[in-house]
Amino acid sequence: MSGIWKSNIGLSIFGESHGVGIGITLTNIIPGLKLDYDYIQSQLDRRKPGQNDLVTPRKEGDKFKIVSGVFNGITTGAPLTMFIENTDTRSKDYSNIKNRIRPGHGDYTSKVKYNNFNDYRGGGHTSGRLTAGLVFAGAIAKLILKEKNILIGAQITQIGKIKDELIEVIDGKIIDELLSKEFPVINPLKEELMINEIKKCKEVGDSVGGQIRCFGINVPTGLGEPFFDSFESTLAHLIFSVPAVKGLEFGTGFKLSEMNGSEANDEYYLEKKDIKTYTNHNGGILGGITNGAVIDFTVVIKPTPSISILQCTVDYKKLEEVSLVVEGRHDPCIVQRVLPVIEAVLALTLLDKLNLI
Amino acid sequence: MSGIWKSNIGLSIFGESHGVGIGITLTNIIPGLKLDYDYIQSQLDRRKPGQNDLVTPRKEGDKFKIVSGVFNGITTGAPLTMFIENTDTRSKDYSNIKNRIRPGHGDYTSKVKYNNFNDYRGGGHTSGRLTAGLVFAGAIAKLILKEKNILIGAQITQIGKIKDELIEVIDGKIIDELLSKEFPVINPLKEELMINEIKKCKEVGDSVGGQIRCFGINVPTGLGEPFFDSFESTLAHLIFSVPAVKGLEFGTGFKLSEMNGSEANDEYYLEKKDIKTYTNHNGGILGGITNGAVIDFTVVIKPTPSISILQCTVDYKKLEEVSLVVEGRHDPCIVQRVLPVIEAVLALTLLDKLNLI
Amino acid sequence: MSGIWKSNIGLSIFGESHGVGIGITLTNIIPGLKLDYDYIQSQLDRRKPGQNDLVTPRKEGDKFKIVSGVFNGITTGAPLTMFIENTDTRSKDYSNIKNRIRPGHGDYTSKVKYNNFNDYRGGGHTSGRLTAGLVFAGAIAKLILKEKNILIGAQITQIGKIKDELIEVIDGKIIDELLSKEFPVINPLKEELMINEIKKCKEVGDSVGGQIRCFGINVPTGLGEPFFDSFESTLAHLIFSVPAVKGLEFGTGFKLSEMNGSEANDEYYLEKKDIKTYTNHNGGILGGITNGAVIDFTVVIKPTPSISILQCTVDYKKLEEVSLVVEGRHDPCIVQRVLPVIEAVLALTLLDKLNLI
Amino acid sequence: MSGIWKSNIGLSIFGESHGVGIGITLTNIIPGLKLDYDYIQSQLDRRKPGQNDLVTPRKEGDKFKIVSGVFNGITTGAPLTMFIENTDTRSKDYSNIKNRIRPGHGDYTSKVKYNNFNDYRGGGHTSGRLTAGLVFAGAIAKLILKEKNILIGAQITQIGKIKDELIEVIDGKIIDELLSKEFPVINPLKEELMINEIKKCKEVGDSVGGQIRCFGINVPTGLGEPFFDSFESTLAHLIFSVPAVKGLEFGTGFKLSEMNGSEANDEYYLEKKDIKTYTNHNGGILGGITNGAVIDFTVVIKPTPSISILQCTVDYKKLEEVSLVVEGRHDPCIVQRVLPVIEAVLALTLLDKLNLI
Repeated sequence: MSGIWKSNIGLSIFGESHGVGIGITLTNIIPGLKLDYDYIQSQLDRRKPGQNDLVTPRKEGDKFKIVSGVFNGITTGAPLTMFIENTDTRSKDYSNIKNRIRPGHGDYTSKVKYNNFNDYRGGGHTSGRLTAGLVFAGAIAKLILKEKNILIGAQITQIGKIKDELIEVIDGKIIDELLSKEFPVINPLKEELMINEIKKCKEVGDSVGGQIRCFGINVPTGLGEPFFDSFESTLAHLIFSVPAVKGLEFGTGFKLSEMNGSEANDEYYLEKKDIKTYTNHNGGILGGITNGAVIDFTVVIKPTPSISILQCTVDYKKLEEVSLVVEGRHDPCIVQRVLPVIEAVLALTLLDKLNLI
Repeated sequence: MSGIWKSNIGLSIFGESHGVGIGITLTNIIPGLKLDYDYIQSQLDRRKPGQNDLVTPRKEGDKFKIVSGVFNGITTGAPLTMFIENTDTRSKDYSNIKNRIRPGHGDYTSKVKYNNFNDYRGGGHTSGRLTAGLVFAGAIAKLILKEKNILIGAQITQIGKIKDELIEVIDGKIIDELLSKEFPVINPLKEELMINEIKKCKEVGDSVGGQIRCFGINVPTGLGEPFFDSFESTLAHLIFSVPAVKGLEFGTGFKLSEMNGSEANDEYYLEKKDIKTYTNHNGGILGGITNGAVIDFTVVIKPTPSISILQCTVDYKKLEEVSLVVEGRHDPCIVQRVLPVIEAVLALTLLDKLNLI
Repeated sequence: MSGIWKSNIGLSIFGESHGVGIGITLTNIIPGLKLDYDYIQSQLDRRKPGQNDLVTPRKEGDKFKIVSGVFNGITTGAPLTMFIENTDTRSKDYSNIKNRIRPGHGDYTSKVKYNNFNDYRGGGHTSGRLTAGLVFAGAIAKLILKEKNILIGAQITQIGKIKDELIEVIDGKIIDELLSKEFPVINPLKEELMINEIKKCKEVGDSVGGQIRCFGINVPTGLGEPFFDSFESTLAHLIFSVPAVKGLEFGTGFKLSEMNGSEANDEYYLEKKDIKTYTNHNGGILGGITNGAVIDFTVVIKPTPSISILQCTVDYKKLEEVSLVVEGRHDPCIVQRVLPVIEAVLALTLLDKLNLI
Repeated sequence: MSGIWKSNIGLSIFGESHGVGIGITLTNIIPGLKLDYDYIQSQLDRRKPGQNDLVTPRKEGDKFKIVSGVFNGITTGAPLTMFIENTDTRSKDYSNIKNRIRPGHGDYTSKVKYNNFNDYRGGGHTSGRLTAGLVFAGAIAKLILKEKNILIGAQITQIGKIKDELIEVIDGKIIDELLSKEFPVINPLKEELMINEIKKCKEVGDSVGGQIRCFGINVPTGLGEPFFDSFESTLAHLIFSVPAVKGLEFGTGFKLSEMNGSEANDEYYLEKKDIKTYTNHNGGILGGITNGAVIDFTVVIKPTPSISILQCTVDYKKLEEVSLVVEGRHDPCIVQRVLPVIEAVLALTLLDKLNLI
């Protein structure tokens, strides 16, 4: 597994779900940034397990330790490496999946690709736990973006069949509101329905999917380059690196197929001397380049593959059909915990395209 | 604009819609491949303008000339460069858009990013015309994949609100059927409705969007690597480099948000000694790695932004609000012509991940 | 062969010595640069064959044609692609080397790597002729650097055993002097001796090597990044892509092995408020980062492998030992023609590290 | 600082000389490799400080800890991350260099580039101490290469003006001999003279440079690709990332400038059915591709810049000329400790070009 992404900034991710720990190296970060450790931890806390009864009871403090790139609490410009030790690992939970490949997970494909030498415990290196590194890196990115007044927030727009209401105007106020919520849904009734849906799944050992809509505001015009470094290409590249994401759409997205050009085109007007669009069907990106409108995209998160319901599968070693109940501690719905990862990926994309050093 | 993508294979795209011509360099191609020029031309012909009355009447033969990497009709392993001269350019059609930025196009963002020095004629370098290079490169990729029995096809699943029927079983026969059609829709009635929809748009100078579902069969298990070189990441990176694409989903895609894990998980069974899945909600990719099932993804193509209907916009130079009717020869629906580009991108992704040299 | 280099700028090289032609795509170039075509051609002319009786009599005008990235003579920011047609090819000269691998050339290694499908005529894609693309790209880079007062020049310091005198002070005046000379040697007596040496080689059908020292002045402090993007790493990467280069040293280079730290350290002093070094043993780079002193490096160019003297070799197809006299038109000494390529590589490295867009 | 190199394999280096520690992430390593921890430690021990009285007395065990990519002592294919804690740091030694920039070091350039936020203690991230990571990664590479019978060794060919004798035949026996020596010099008399030279420097607080010649045997033909991925380019890129290297030559290197083609060309002959060269002036690489001969290159290592002799410098903050005696524990000669780093870089280049996964 390559684990490395090198663009204007760089990411190098490492670790395993039930190994020594997990971490990330983030490179080409501006020197002189005073790190707000509490803020960074708060971002990690949004993703960490065991926060409430909607997510896995695995207890990980997810306390990060910076081992490179910071001197007296200030970034030096050197590679910034963070490490989180694993503490609450129960590897024995995974003894029954050593050979029984879990449906919906990467167990089978990892076994084939890595010749069965991959660490299978909790998904090993391919575990969603690794995304804590992205959240850490994203928190650094957000601190830098904040100084340029660029803000990022995300909404849970759907859990199962329950949809939150559509936010019409995306501004700093709504971003603040979203960021203030542990479960960022606008309509409290919908929130309750969603939470009930998740609890219902939990009770029966099943799981459920959902959608996250993510926003970036005050983004300068001119980020991204056609063809292969378009803003959408870079963001999509990183978004589809996040486990459980199976779809991505910008702006009006899939509904654009039903529209006419006369409706879908975002017409221009002048606001003082600024060129603006009346609508934002293109999600803030035109020709692969940001246009100054809100960056607006939606991802779909598939239902957590780990369920306690009996499933059909195959024993990889014996090559025989077997049944499987995935034991261990699972999330009935991963959407809430993926949300800060999606925000982080947008923050990292923006930082990369801003190309500050 | 960077125009370069370097992975196991490499792509370097160049040219402008109304300049000297357009081309591409494709690198790290196996030596010894006898090129089937007719096949390559047939792929370009699927994308070229002026084929029928559903697309722009611009007449471009799109006759490619190979200027590097081929000796006696056989690839040498050196960079393979192709060039297509522009012949039917009518740059004067674009004099009225020199400063009037066309809604839905990259005109405004290009002007900002490139300090107004970009070639604005027909979108210049950001024009969909540049994708002829991708189709050429994809044709080479398909020739190599064919030798490994890997086949690629695509279906127009939606135009406006009209949807084609869902293909249940994706095999060589259906791929052949799709490839044999100029307008690859399964249900003839739906095809007629779609074509009528496009013609209706053409009559009123408007445009319409659509969706394309693309398949790859006989793909080996084990292509792609978590995190940042996942199969989905690489494919998405290239897909979102294609102009007019605004969304991408794998397998069941956005509908996964409404499903439970017990339904969405693709359970395993044995077919002789091969491990297979009953369903393919994950579109042939698990944990970022191909699982041997059909590669199955859908993209949304926005309505062509060029419409002959009066639109509100801004004069970039005078900074005043103006109206605009986009003149010139336009496609009322670009979906049919983007389809071979999407196939090409899948072929290039597969070739890249197979890493044959 | 990959032919692509992607960093802050990008290079994509293509073509063959005796094919249709050769070219290059240069990416991420600032928009708005008015191209001085005469200057660019003058740079190509320094490298082109047939200039005088010291080099190969092959007559190539090396007239470049820009096919992308320029609109009304001004760069647009889009990929800048240049093409030069081959005109004076005599492929029959190469019929005897189809299987007889030429010592000192890449014939044998290319045959093995590319399974004997490589274009063998005149070295095909691996020919020094391809470096015309680098000279073109370097000319664009020099035009941009000139606006920042960064100047580049190079000296032939050695041909065979004859050494030019050491330039002590490297400033704009000496750069001008070097650039004004067709055969840039300071001491006229040494120049005569070198030219005699080359003519002597030509008479007997042999060749001779040499050394080139290259300078960059007015380079800002702070270009390059440890570890893997150090200024030396990037420059060395590109320098060793140039055929015939077999060694590279910065500043005092190999002689540093004989020195003590007390002698080799470049001590600092103040010139007004600028920090300067008394000496420049490090060639303008410390810790992988430019220090504001003159960029100063030397490369060794091996004797042209093509000689008319009988050599022992092997017939690759028949696998038998044979003799070979390399026919065709050859350079008795390639140093003079490589010199503008070395300058070009420095210009491209500087442009890349300046990261102007 | 970017710290990341991504090619077929990947390297991500992090840490500081006097911070928490140092480490590296090595990616795209074959799964299933049983790690020989003793061998890896033995390689690190060759580079570590405090081994004998020729090097710095700083006492670092350089005990590595693997935190990712290994499961039950066997590589998994996931990113392989190693960490070494710093133990014997004496940061106070560096208080006098906080502002007094040390001649010959990267202090000044780092301060400019990183806006004075860089960790200055012992060179911080740019310290030679970081190369322990390269030695670790190189040890893994050597383990993989050994299975393919590819062996690597290096000789100290020069310290100051004292030169070891030239090794004529490079084979497994001589590689073994070199690897068995703590100070790999062939002629014992020359070894003694070199050691005396180093001790003499130590006594007076000065330092001395040297040269290292490195070999790779049993390397397959066909590694590397023109132009920009030539074997020389990749090796040079990594070699010049190693602190203190100021020159690199392949094969006969700089002496090629004095030779005629008839002498410098490596003529071919047949050994059974293998095509071989009588000589190896090209150091095992022709046309950027390995030719099956011994990989043979030489680097020059400058004298350690840290000396206890009074030097002229500038106070970066006060902007005044000052004198400086570099305190702390220094190496009078770094050549012996750089040698395993050079070997490691060759091993990593070979592993990268072999492209095993």
